[in-house]
Amino acid sequence: MSNSSNTLAEAHALDRADPLSPLRDRFLLPDGLIYFDGHSLGPLPRLALINQREVVEDQWGRQLIGGWNDAGWIDAPQRVGAKIAELIGAKPHEVIVADSTSVNLFKLIVAASRLSSRGTLLTETDNFHTDRYIASGAAEITGLKLRMVPRAEIQDSLDPDTSLLLLTHVHYGTAERYDMAAVTKAAQEAGALTIWDLCHSTGAVPLQLNRDGVELAVGCGYKYLNGGPGAPSFVYVAEHLQDRLLSPLRGWMGHAAPFDFTTDYVPAPGIDRFLAGTPPILSLAALESAIDTFDGVSMQAVWEKSIALFDLFDRLMAERCPDLVCISPREPSQRGSHIAFRHPNAFEICQALIDQGVIGDFRAPDVIRFGLTPLYLRFEDVWTAVERCAEIADSRSWDQPRFSARRKVT
Amino acid sequence: MSNSSNTLAEAHALDRADPLSPLRDRFLLPDGLIYFDGHSLGPLPRLALINQREVVEDQWGRQLIGGWNDAGWIDAPQRVGAKIAELIGAKPHEVIVADSTSVNLFKLIVAASRLSSRGTLLTETDNFHTDRYIASGAAEITGLKLRMVPRAEIQDSLDPDTSLLLLTHVHYGTAERYDMAAVTKAAQEAGALTIWDLCHSTGAVPLQLNRDGVELAVGCGYKYLNGGPGAPSFVYVAEHLQDRLLSPLRGWMGHAAPFDFTTDYVPAPGIDRFLAGTPPILSLAALESAIDTFDGVSMQAVWEKSIALFDLFDRLMAERCPDLVCISPREPSQRGSHIAFRHPNAFEICQALIDQGVIGDFRAPDVIRFGLTPLYLRFEDVWTAVERCAEIADSRSWDQPRFSARRKVT
Repeated sequence: MSNSSNTLAEAHALDRADPLSPLRDRFLLPDGLIYFDGHSLGPLPRLALINQREVVEDQWGRQLIGGWNDAGWIDAPQRVGAKIAELIGAKPHEVIVADSTSVNLFKLIVAASRLSSRGTLLTETDNFHTDRYIASGAAEITGLKLRMVPRAEIQDSLDPDTSLLLLTHVHYGTAERYDMAAVTKAAQEAGALTIWDLCHSTGAVPLQLNRDGVELAVGCGYKYLNGGPGAPSFVYVAEHLQDRLLSPLRGWMGHAAPFDFTTDYVPAPGIDRFLAGTPPILSLAALESAIDTFDGVSMQAVWEKSIALFDLFDRLMAERCPDLVCISPREPSQRGSHIAFRHPNAFEICQALIDQGVIGDFRAPDVIRFGLTPLYLRFEDVWTAVERCAEIADSRSWDQPRFSARRKVT
Repeated sequence: MSNSSNTLAEAHALDRADPLSPLRDRFLLPDGLIYFDGHSLGPLPRLALINQREVVEDQWGRQLIGGWNDAGWIDAPQRVGAKIAELIGAKPHEVIVADSTSVNLFKLIVAASRLSSRGTLLTETDNFHTDRYIASGAAEITGLKLRMVPRAEIQDSLDPDTSLLLLTHVHYGTAERYDMAAVTKAAQEAGALTIWDLCHSTGAVPLQLNRDGVELAVGCGYKYLNGGPGAPSFVYVAEHLQDRLLSPLRGWMGHAAPFDFTTDYVPAPGIDRFLAGTPPILSLAALESAIDTFDGVSMQAVWEKSIALFDLFDRLMAERCPDLVCISPREPSQRGSHIAFRHPNAFEICQALIDQGVIGDFRAPDVIRFGLTPLYLRFEDVWTAVERCAEIADSRSWDQPRFSARRKVT
């Protein structure tokens, strides 16, 4: 047997031993496609397909306006929030689904800035760009100074003027992960609040927000939660802070009595005050089905399989495609659930893989990312991806690196 | 023949002569239900039912991440915005779909406040409550003073300190309508910009935003546009103002080059800068289908039928239920597309009507509203509603007025 047959047999053995393998059937995956892009857009859960028909045809179509009460639309932000809370180690009433990550970040930065007279909003120079953009707008409005420093300097940059620390828990590019408990504690000791962006963490790595003393967070519905394109986002606010924070977006859904039409805005008690306008129910319903798809799944088991997928990917790639250099941390506690490689021709390799039905994604200038999503990926898929990669690398003489950035929603 | 047989025959004749009657088939309406609540949540367009299946199963399910480009998700905010523009007398690039009405109002108030050194945001005391709540939050952030005056005093209250005038074009309760061109002009002459909330206007009354000199507006997708529960909202910014306004919500989708991951926020040219985060595609797709349902329909013809529905409703109600007092303006140019009645037992009457399959809605303390939606309502429906109302009024001896407000999304 060739080496590659050996490793295929090994991958099959891992799949046979995988306790999560039956979960793959909970998703609709196109035949012949190997999907490593779940860190950008999760695939369609079967439950979402079934329920979306019901939401559209039976609820909207037949219950019409009555759907707000009878189909439970009105409580969906809280209900789905509570389901997410279970996945991230929070109390049910500490999470609510609303708006987009960008809008939710804005709410939290502006609201939290008012708790302190300090003047600086600290973030990472290489934080995800929408976080930095939103932070710049929120800083301008609140009078905060936006200070951006490299990752390695974050903790040393906490000073007596730091009001807020805004960080993305898992880096969208490299998959580097902060030590959430340690960083939150360091910020607390420096007198600052931390806002965590959990877009690349939720549904991917085990999270214990309460245990780790997390105060504020936002997260994404459409990546590892598989909530569908542009699924609504969520906000987490630790119980003890909820009534001290006031969202700048005082929409009626965040009012203490939205249906009383009172003259003045009275913020709802608790997490509800972080709602603004009427939520997009069709998208929210798909997110709910997607989260129900995690039913009975332990995030610890998901994470253990993610580690095993990473290890296989890393090892096979090192053997078969040594020119693709892994830039994700090898120590599991220091990374999220994707693996990223650097290669001067990353763009061409990524395109050639896509042409062969292996969907990863490219990040300029020279990175390929593969999302490791244990609910539906097999070890065999990792083997196939590496084999195809090797064939591509072997068969081509590369021109100068070139890429034309395609519009791509991460 | 009884009087009521005469009027039924008359209603049938009006239906036979109605050039819009074939449009009813474009909607899925439950058997036996007469739906006068399209001003709260429009019914399900058949096209939305068909397309939602395609968006979920074929686009999300099969195209996965490729859907952003291949299924045109990425351009949906602009594409659907341009379709709305056609219904409201705006240029295609002056309208974009994003977020909720509440969030969009916030963007416009904060952005527009920066164009002037004046200090007052003027609105109507009885403006829709989320508008007032959002205005209060935006005023606090911008340092504007929020001044609320009764409807009749709006124009006289424009003064040299008025920076912005925020008004809802059609009143959610009474259906009173402002003269958009005249009010906008008066504000302009006073040196103020006007932001129009078109929630109860879009898809209901003829709008000519460009002709009427409108500078800024927001509107709702789920009422007369029939876009589904919580459908995304839209923003209109007149061409000449677009590059002078900067949204406080600087999400990546409003960036000049969202996929270049540049360090600094550079607002997109034109209307695109009013996008924030990733849009909820399933809800946005339903809205697009709903707007496509207006294909070939002239808003003038819609409005003419609305007038005829109103006149019949008003006349029959005056004959059969004189105790229900019409509080909507009888002059068509002064109202929107619903009819509202006052009665001390409005709550009980509304509930009894709903029990009999006639869906209107109640507004505390004593108002019933009936949405007049020419795309799918028949003159016969008006006749039936009034007949049932008369039966209810005849058969009951009312207790003291009482109602228990139900949670209800307008």
